[in-house]
Amino acid sequence: MKRYLSMINSALEACIPDGNFGEQKLIDSAAYSLRLPGKRVRPALTLAFCELCGGEAQKALPFACAVEMIHTYSLIHDDLPCMDDDDYRRGQASNHKVYGEDIALLAGDALQSMAYTTMLSDTAVKAVGAENAARAARVLAEKSGLLGMVGGQTIDIMSEGKEPNLDTLTVMDEKKTACLIEAACMMGCICAGADDAKVAAAERYAHAVGLAFQIVDDILDVTSTTDELGKPVGSDTDNEKSTYVALLGIDRCRRTVDELTAQAVDALAVFDCDTKELADFAVALANRKK
Amino acid sequence: MKRYLSMINSALEACIPDGNFGEQKLIDSAAYSLRLPGKRVRPALTLAFCELCGGEAQKALPFACAVEMIHTYSLIHDDLPCMDDDDYRRGQASNHKVYGEDIALLAGDALQSMAYTTMLSDTAVKAVGAENAARAARVLAEKSGLLGMVGGQTIDIMSEGKEPNLDTLTVMDEKKTACLIEAACMMGCICAGADDAKVAAAERYAHAVGLAFQIVDDILDVTSTTDELGKPVGSDTDNEKSTYVALLGIDRCRRTVDELTAQAVDALAVFDCDTKELADFAVALANRKK
Repeated sequence: MKRYLSMINSALEACIPDGNFGEQKLIDSAAYSLRLPGKRVRPALTLAFCELCGGEAQKALPFACAVEMIHTYSLIHDDLPCMDDDDYRRGQASNHKVYGEDIALLAGDALQSMAYTTMLSDTAVKAVGAENAARAARVLAEKSGLLGMVGGQTIDIMSEGKEPNLDTLTVMDEKKTACLIEAACMMGCICAGADDAKVAAAERYAHAVGLAFQIVDDILDVTSTTDELGKPVGSDTDNEKSTYVALLGIDRCRRTVDELTAQAVDALAVFDCDTKELADFAVALANRKK
Repeated sequence: MKRYLSMINSALEACIPDGNFGEQKLIDSAAYSLRLPGKRVRPALTLAFCELCGGEAQKALPFACAVEMIHTYSLIHDDLPCMDDDDYRRGQASNHKVYGEDIALLAGDALQSMAYTTMLSDTAVKAVGAENAARAARVLAEKSGLLGMVGGQTIDIMSEGKEPNLDTLTVMDEKKTACLIEAACMMGCICAGADDAKVAAAERYAHAVGLAFQIVDDILDVTSTTDELGKPVGSDTDNEKSTYVALLGIDRCRRTVDELTAQAVDALAVFDCDTKELADFAVALANRKK
């Protein structure tokens, strides 16, 4: 998956426009968050699924960038004082600490619209066809919106201070985290003109991988050391956060991660090409130590 | 233009989904602002331009709703404490006063994505064709984004406390206000499959109407009474806001409004149908008393 990184970073860079009159600070603010070093997992999945369905990664690149823009906007807004009030993101000052709350808010808004100008540009539409471009953009809008990612953030806010509950925690993570990964994988297939069965399989793979990722996060928060993890452990307990470990215990959490990883690998059976890279990716996520 | 009002309000109402798990407060928050009574000028313009180009208004309805959703999200975010910190909007409590800052922020984010799920729904895409749907959605994204509406809001923030300047004020209003009206008018033409000359004429019409509207706003703030206007007059002077009246004087402002209105009416010449309604609309906006 790492082989896509430089391709994605160059394409994101090319999406940052020149300011034509006075909005330079907004552009700087959006660019700052877009440029924060990251693994670019979501856009890499878009490209990998496009290739898995026999498409050229290059054609899916604007759609991959769009997923990363949506992810980036959600992080900027999440860090705002009226939300999680975080001063740091990926080890650097969060957007509003550098540019102020007003500009950070607007940069998030602008990154969301930039996702759509990127996916629906003449070049992007010509490369995959208007039907596929419109469908991919709709999937991203649905998965990131009211009943998807933003809905999940709402459930997170609404469940603060309430009795922890496995159903609520699961639905929250399905929406808050898995939905955008689902969009990323589905869009790759759609860009390659894949049939509905493949798009649905990509969604199942992403759903399982997304949930497993969250559970592993909770496990590492209690089993890892701050040195190993690269961020403070025990923070979930300190923040009285509802976690899978608290609700299920570590052993059942580990079994659930194994089941989800098997589901992810199973979902890949429908694809004709070599699916080893994506199967390995699911297994590596489950076994990660940080 | 009023004849479109009930059609638009019904269509907007139909876009409000049922919550399926815990995100009901987010849906209520988005619906609250979407339902605030308004003249629905932007979506009405989308439908009017669609009909002017020989299309059925019904087909452009999802696109008209999308424009209103973008407008609504921008108002919610504009009212937030880190922006204008307004407690009231259209005579009612602003969104964050009712639902809290966190939910208001997310409701704005969700309304932006809802604009795209609405425009790119199966029904909307089938009605106007995938090429036109993708193009209309791209126009809305461009006009509302980094170099459009959100860019204009940034120029507004950046020019606070600086020496008033006609160029800055004009570009700010072109972006902050006129851009979304331009998108509304252009999208109507695109939905009807109109040629580039007509789309460009719709953009010119909207640009002139949008700027004239802002100048009239400034004139009324000094010439009207609070009773007539239905909101406090003299607020621009009180807020030390840079205005056209302060920069140009009332007489030159009135002449500019007349010139812009003439430009708007001239732009309609390219359309084959009866353009009286849209010409009258431009004149009525210029002559309004509130």
